[in-house]
Amino acid sequence: MTTTETWNGYLDARRGQYLDEYLDLLRIPSVSALPEHAGDVQRAAQWVAQRITTAGLEHVQILPTGGHPVVYGDWLHAQGSTSDEGMTPTDKPAGAIPTILIYGHFDVQPADPLDLWTTPPFEPTLRDGRVYARGASDDKGNMLTPIFAIEALLRTEGALPVNLKVIFEGQEEIGSPQLPAFIAAHRDLLACDLVVSADSGQWAPDQPLLGIGARGLSGLQIDVRGAKSDLHSGVYGGAVPNSIHALAHILDSLHDAEGKILVEGFYDDVVPLTDADRAQIAAAPFDEAAYRSALGVSALVGEPGYTPLEQLGARPTLEVNGVWGGFQGEGTKTVLPAEAHAKITCRLVPDQDPERIYELVAAHVKRHAPPGVEVTVRALPGKARPYLMPADHWGNHAAADVLTDIYGVAPLYVRSGGSVPVYELFQNTLGVYSVGFGFGLRDEGIHAPNEFFRVESFERGPGAYCRLLHRLGQRN
Amino acid sequence: MTTTETWNGYLDARRGQYLDEYLDLLRIPSVSALPEHAGDVQRAAQWVAQRITTAGLEHVQILPTGGHPVVYGDWLHAQGSTSDEGMTPTDKPAGAIPTILIYGHFDVQPADPLDLWTTPPFEPTLRDGRVYARGASDDKGNMLTPIFAIEALLRTEGALPVNLKVIFEGQEEIGSPQLPAFIAAHRDLLACDLVVSADSGQWAPDQPLLGIGARGLSGLQIDVRGAKSDLHSGVYGGAVPNSIHALAHILDSLHDAEGKILVEGFYDDVVPLTDADRAQIAAAPFDEAAYRSALGVSALVGEPGYTPLEQLGARPTLEVNGVWGGFQGEGTKTVLPAEAHAKITCRLVPDQDPERIYELVAAHVKRHAPPGVEVTVRALPGKARPYLMPADHWGNHAAADVLTDIYGVAPLYVRSGGSVPVYELFQNTLGVYSVGFGFGLRDEGIHAPNEFFRVESFERGPGAYCRLLHRLGQRN
Repeated sequence: MTTTETWNGYLDARRGQYLDEYLDLLRIPSVSALPEHAGDVQRAAQWVAQRITTAGLEHVQILPTGGHPVVYGDWLHAQGSTSDEGMTPTDKPAGAIPTILIYGHFDVQPADPLDLWTTPPFEPTLRDGRVYARGASDDKGNMLTPIFAIEALLRTEGALPVNLKVIFEGQEEIGSPQLPAFIAAHRDLLACDLVVSADSGQWAPDQPLLGIGARGLSGLQIDVRGAKSDLHSGVYGGAVPNSIHALAHILDSLHDAEGKILVEGFYDDVVPLTDADRAQIAAAPFDEAAYRSALGVSALVGEPGYTPLEQLGARPTLEVNGVWGGFQGEGTKTVLPAEAHAKITCRLVPDQDPERIYELVAAHVKRHAPPGVEVTVRALPGKARPYLMPADHWGNHAAADVLTDIYGVAPLYVRSGGSVPVYELFQNTLGVYSVGFGFGLRDEGIHAPNEFFRVESFERGPGAYCRLLHRLGQRN
Repeated sequence: MTTTETWNGYLDARRGQYLDEYLDLLRIPSVSALPEHAGDVQRAAQWVAQRITTAGLEHVQILPTGGHPVVYGDWLHAQGSTSDEGMTPTDKPAGAIPTILIYGHFDVQPADPLDLWTTPPFEPTLRDGRVYARGASDDKGNMLTPIFAIEALLRTEGALPVNLKVIFEGQEEIGSPQLPAFIAAHRDLLACDLVVSADSGQWAPDQPLLGIGARGLSGLQIDVRGAKSDLHSGVYGGAVPNSIHALAHILDSLHDAEGKILVEGFYDDVVPLTDADRAQIAAAPFDEAAYRSALGVSALVGEPGYTPLEQLGARPTLEVNGVWGGFQGEGTKTVLPAEAHAKITCRLVPDQDPERIYELVAAHVKRHAPPGVEVTVRALPGKARPYLMPADHWGNHAAADVLTDIYGVAPLYVRSGGSVPVYELFQNTLGVYSVGFGFGLRDEGIHAPNEFFRVESFERGPGAYCRLLHRLGQRN
């Protein structure tokens, strides 16, 4: 089965084919948040299952979760013993071939507001060396790169350097509600020494990073109700409670003028940053003027006493993600709105607990509800605990070596501002840490209109994964 | 042409036919605020023009305004001289037959939110003696009643007791933007001694009212922009301005906790209520507990120091009519919203000026804009000055006599909380006051889902108009 072709040559010869396959996958509107797209998420799962089968993985299955499905496959024939007994999760299994579990997701965020897309979100378009489509970067482009690496290694070397499992899921963008139960139920199937996540990125085109932390998540919806129905604002205005006024009052009570969160107890469980933590964070280059200019904002705002990088990754947040109530059309409608709504998510850092944060915010909202309206609060799906791994873990060493080779510069060790609920889940359920190994960049508009992925990154990924699997397979 | 039939008998014999015609008109979705319904507004104009021609009016025309059209018709053959020269607007023309201009509108409010309607808004449905449809009460049901009265009088008496003109417009619900220029340009055509408006209502099923005032209107939209596009709330949250946070801060700055408006200068031009004003307002029955219960609110809120009836009619308001930004769908979308928007209308009392109020609110909004976001304010269509007429005007005397006859109890003199921009317009352009004479009731959900009109009111209206025209035609 081994050929004289290298994985490198194999990949080079298939650039066009792989790009076409990528565009195919992007055309499936696998929006996990919207029930009307459930069939598309299923279709994406079938596409992925078919593709990893073609790549050479075995035991490929589309596994039900109770929500959107998970796609599993493995290849467990690496030369050498499997993991030693009794090792701790941070030790590399000495003299053994490790089992690596690769993670990614094939679902995407909703695409609205559609009118802000230059080209339709599910008609992927190549412009200026970039692929524009919902999910281009998060996570379809990144998820495909290890699959192509596996195919190249198996076709050219006849084997993988490690024992390998893959798990690609279909509900990351809604917070993987059924994944905890699924992983607990498939503990043996998924047993491994390290997770490598393709749902990840780099600092800049010329600067790699290794993520060592991710913020947790706790979301809630506020529903305010005044009168039984919308009323005429002339006939009733002035004496009857206005649900939007009440909601604005509640929302404005959540932060002080500078951006500090005013929810009582919110910061109680936050582990203070050490001087070493702050030095590690400050090592990352950050040009505030360029950052502001790229985003088009005239000023940054945030919790006083912390640098923007600390605010963005190592401190908790409370952000209103959406608000609506009353008339949103053209012109004037003189309505006293009966209902107003807001969605909020908090990003959490160690040792904040998502359940406790939900309770604290809900209590704050109730406490600040003005008279005359009924305010209800409910948790939104997608709770995640914050995650932090040791920078000097053996998985990080391997990834750092590969990244340093590719970029010519060592990676930064970074705490991500986003949430990767599965990291904490793998840690608690499978007892292993996760190394993020992907090629997304922060300007790619993920979760926003005109999401894109650089073709250069898409082509860099498979080769990088070939090297990483080789490096992970080396004896200590 | 005169028959032995009375107008009363004529109307009784046509109840079924008139109800059917009313349902026909309600089926036309003449939503003036939505450009896609412009053709429907035109269709409603044609329906009305046809109907007043059938009723016996002359010179019927659909007149262009630059926006939605106006329907005009008249009958100017009343026995006796026309108005004396030199009378003041509040004097009844002594010994002369007055010329009465009847006003109403055939456009309607938008029907959203559609899902809160029990039956579709443009499929009128009879339930429990009520007609449910958008525009059932405001104003199609009320607008038809003088038309049927005119028909009954002309068919049974061969003449009207007064010289009569009608003007029915198609853009009341968007604030009649082209009507001022239209009326100024048609001053002679519309010259009259008194306006009688069918866009009006009564206090309760057993208690008539005469409106002597209407609040003015000044509306604006606030647009907040943070970053150039929506961003990932994990990657950017904590340091990048959130447009919804900024908007909530602005909106919450507009009122104090009790409901007093905090816009600097807002109350400067308000004429204080006299003891007599307050006594007249307090004469209206008001059961606060029943009012709250009917609306489903646990408390009333409003400007301290004023009774609810004063707050609802004689004091100015600032109400947020709509708010939107970010994600409004099911579930969680972790977006840092780039944009957030709100629509506001203020109700004004003498001597507040809509332009000045707009400027004051806009300045307040700008002053309270937090750093990092761009806040723009623009005026919304529909400005109106506040209106107040003397309670002892001869038009009110005539209407009061008729209402007392019908209800067995004298009408209350009430300042309406809503705005009737045309009243102030007729006053300033034609030099006449307007008497509201309609049968809407305040529980009929105008501007809200499940708007309805009582069949009883619809049937009471034409007879009441026959009596009113006779009473107005009596010599002093």
